[in-house]
Amino acid sequence: MKFELTILGCGSAVPTVQRNAAAQVLNVLERYFLIDCAEGTQQQLRRFHVPYNKINHVFISHLHGDHFFGLIGLISSLSMQGRRGELHVYGDSRLKEIIDFQLKLMNCKLNYALIFHPLTREPALIYEDKSVTVYSFPLKHRYDAPVCGFLFSEKERERTIIRDMAEAFQVPVAFMHRLKKGEDFVTPEGEVIANSRLTVAPPAPRSYAYMTDTLFREEFAEYVKGVDLLYHESTYGDAYAELAKETFHSTATQAARIAELAGAKRLLLGHFSARYPDPTPLLEEARSFFPCTDLCYDGAVFEVRQEGRKI
Amino acid sequence: MKFELTILGCGSAVPTVQRNAAAQVLNVLERYFLIDCAEGTQQQLRRFHVPYNKINHVFISHLHGDHFFGLIGLISSLSMQGRRGELHVYGDSRLKEIIDFQLKLMNCKLNYALIFHPLTREPALIYEDKSVTVYSFPLKHRYDAPVCGFLFSEKERERTIIRDMAEAFQVPVAFMHRLKKGEDFVTPEGEVIANSRLTVAPPAPRSYAYMTDTLFREEFAEYVKGVDLLYHESTYGDAYAELAKETFHSTATQAARIAELAGAKRLLLGHFSARYPDPTPLLEEARSFFPCTDLCYDGAVFEVRQEGRKI
Repeated sequence: MKFELTILGCGSAVPTVQRNAAAQVLNVLERYFLIDCAEGTQQQLRRFHVPYNKINHVFISHLHGDHFFGLIGLISSLSMQGRRGELHVYGDSRLKEIIDFQLKLMNCKLNYALIFHPLTREPALIYEDKSVTVYSFPLKHRYDAPVCGFLFSEKERERTIIRDMAEAFQVPVAFMHRLKKGEDFVTPEGEVIANSRLTVAPPAPRSYAYMTDTLFREEFAEYVKGVDLLYHESTYGDAYAELAKETFHSTATQAARIAELAGAKRLLLGHFSARYPDPTPLLEEARSFFPCTDLCYDGAVFEVRQEGRKI
Repeated sequence: MKFELTILGCGSAVPTVQRNAAAQVLNVLERYFLIDCAEGTQQQLRRFHVPYNKINHVFISHLHGDHFFGLIGLISSLSMQGRRGELHVYGDSRLKEIIDFQLKLMNCKLNYALIFHPLTREPALIYEDKSVTVYSFPLKHRYDAPVCGFLFSEKERERTIIRDMAEAFQVPVAFMHRLKKGEDFVTPEGEVIANSRLTVAPPAPRSYAYMTDTLFREEFAEYVKGVDLLYHESTYGDAYAELAKETFHSTATQAARIAELAGAKRLLLGHFSARYPDPTPLLEEARSFFPCTDLCYDGAVFEVRQEGRKI
């Protein structure tokens, strides 16, 4: 039951030898979600042994090249390799125009259906299946590049029935689904059997949020309240706080403040400016506000473990 | 006085971990010519320490993604890094539409002038300065992807005057430029002094040709007669000769035959299908026809040395 993030690139603007630009894959229960797709992402997917044929959903935060220039290559390669299943792309509606225009001028017909989902400026549920949801929410970058964050969450699962106990109290089969939802059981004699005696709580649902290329605004923390793992850009350190503001980016300290305000469990820093070949100073700045912080690097894997609950 | 080729990618279609797709840089006397620009080319330029800010001319053979998907990223990065000088791009006229469309939808204004030169289906001189020429010539790939080869040549230089000899025969200053061009000198007394006694021949002009994504046709050798260094695609080996034909590609043996027909001095094989993690079998096939053959690999550097002449 994996919930695992692989960093494919954590640089910003121009790729360096150490760091590719933005891309990552989140594996939620064997659903592979690709988040941003900078140039070279398909190479990184191979380098880090991600089964990229399993990627069915691609989320593009905004239309700056360091977040989407690799998409056309990935789309094209998947077709050459015989993909048949649908590929869903979520992004700025202009992204569809860019992809369509290139495919048309190249006379390229894909073997599979490319289904585009335009993002809006309102928080929205953009993906849902029986176990997982994905929400997009607006952040604040340059006026001509509206940007979205993404929140990936497991759904709350049903409680597990303790068979022996259910039998002992003669819970009828017809009541079982209510037991799974947490209802107490009342015996024919009127005795109330607390649900917690009859069932075990499921593991806590896990969640991951992606926030990049954004100015710092306290209210953005509201979108990711209580998230387990938060990736937040920290293009710069405190010394460049003014530059961060001018370029609509955040500092490491601001990333930490968002994590703190949101009550996140763990923070990952990324989207480092090329001026930080070693981003350790950013880590130190963030940790002084939010100790449970780590640095991304290309190829890093971060897991959110399942945790049991007593309730 | 360099004449040096650096291979940035020599794979075909889909990039693998070992091989990026098509891109290379030719340094002719400190002019850096970029030839094809697959996804990831800007990363490869950095990886192999090519001074990519010195690239002023980019030649794109045809509009398949494995030959141009890295161009938009390179164009964009050069602008972010403050480039001011013109960048000249030579390619299918649809390439200009693709680039312009993306820059427009991204609201991206470049800091420098991007000058586009559409290629034609006739052999043409597409670049010339005082020391170098570049010709394009048509090859044969899929109907919807017209492809050009490129021939890069040093111009014939003037002969070097042997000062002591010129003085001894009292050659007037006004005659020196004719001496450099190879004229004999006639003394006032009517004695003919052979030019070869008064001057030294310049090194032989060097040349490089790039031929990729093409069916084999004997007549294509005419475009590259006597070339010093020939890069010719060999997507497949003889075992896949039919597949090569169907996909409008060449085999290693066919590449060798072109080299032989052209009287090339040295052949480089590249554009290998992903089915050859080790392309050594292709080398063996080519060498049985054309011994002076080598395999490309990402990061390989091939130099054409200056050679003196006696004439």
